[in-house]
Amino acid sequence: MFCNIGKTDVEYIRQGIEDYTGRISHFIDFSIVDLPAVKHTKKTSPAELASREGDLILKAVSGANLIILLDEKGNEFTTHEFADWLKNIMNQGMKKIAFVTGGAYGFSENLYRDSSFQIALSKFTFTHQMARLIFVEQLYRALTIIRGIPYHNN
Amino acid sequence: MFCNIGKTDVEYIRQGIEDYTGRISHFIDFSIVDLPAVKHTKKTSPAELASREGDLILKAVSGANLIILLDEKGNEFTTHEFADWLKNIMNQGMKKIAFVTGGAYGFSENLYRDSSFQIALSKFTFTHQMARLIFVEQLYRALTIIRGIPYHNN
Repeated sequence: MFCNIGKTDVEYIRQGIEDYTGRISHFIDFSIVDLPAVKHTKKTSPAELASREGDLILKAVSGANLIILLDEKGNEFTTHEFADWLKNIMNQGMKKIAFVTGGAYGFSENLYRDSSFQIALSKFTFTHQMARLIFVEQLYRALTIIRGIPYHNN
Repeated sequence: MFCNIGKTDVEYIRQGIEDYTGRISHFIDFSIVDLPAVKHTKKTSPAELASREGDLILKAVSGANLIILLDEKGNEFTTHEFADWLKNIMNQGMKKIAFVTGGAYGFSENLYRDSSFQIALSKFTFTHQMARLIFVEQLYRALTIIRGIPYHNN
């Protein structure tokens, strides 16, 4: 499961995510849940907004064995390291893994506390929507590595 | 200038690159040159193919002050570090910068020798086409930072 705050409204990114979602679904049960961003008012602090979005996310991923945050401050993997890590988790019988991207206000303390691991896609900062596309491509690629299927780099 | 081996034929990636190319062109002279991949035969070794593609690239970027390779083995920047680095280069009067991605056989020795710097987009391996999209988004983002223009992370 891949859980995000906010819609993917850039059409070409939406198409790319749809493409990889279809491919990933050949390997694992996979769904994307885009939660609505919390409406901000002048009175609400960014920390409060992050906290409310964190609660929404925690509710949405409550059935997961493992919550993984895609977080700039997290650990960077090579594609093969990511595949090995994922294989290891799947071999431990953790079938319900929730990968989560944050909203405009970042991750709440609650989310950090309840998550098991944080993965950084790059040292670069991407748009939230681009990060989603990059992640699904890497997840697909990791699954092809785990299954021993050649993946073309074009 | 952004020089690649091979076409961008994934339609949604092509659209994304076109989007950012238009935005980048508001700030700098920017063009993308996609060179044809060298035809491989059973007789030609990968090193020989890389070498031929390297020669094609060197010819295409011959007018550049600086050749920068986008290379997995290169240096990783944060977006702000990349912007500072780019600003510094532009302040030194280097107006013709060629960013280069490799083909299926990687970069030739000649290209490494003639390049000034290698930048890694991530520890992850991306498809060549995805790497192009990620790069143009980061280049655009770096230019907005240099110009002090707010950039939304959506």
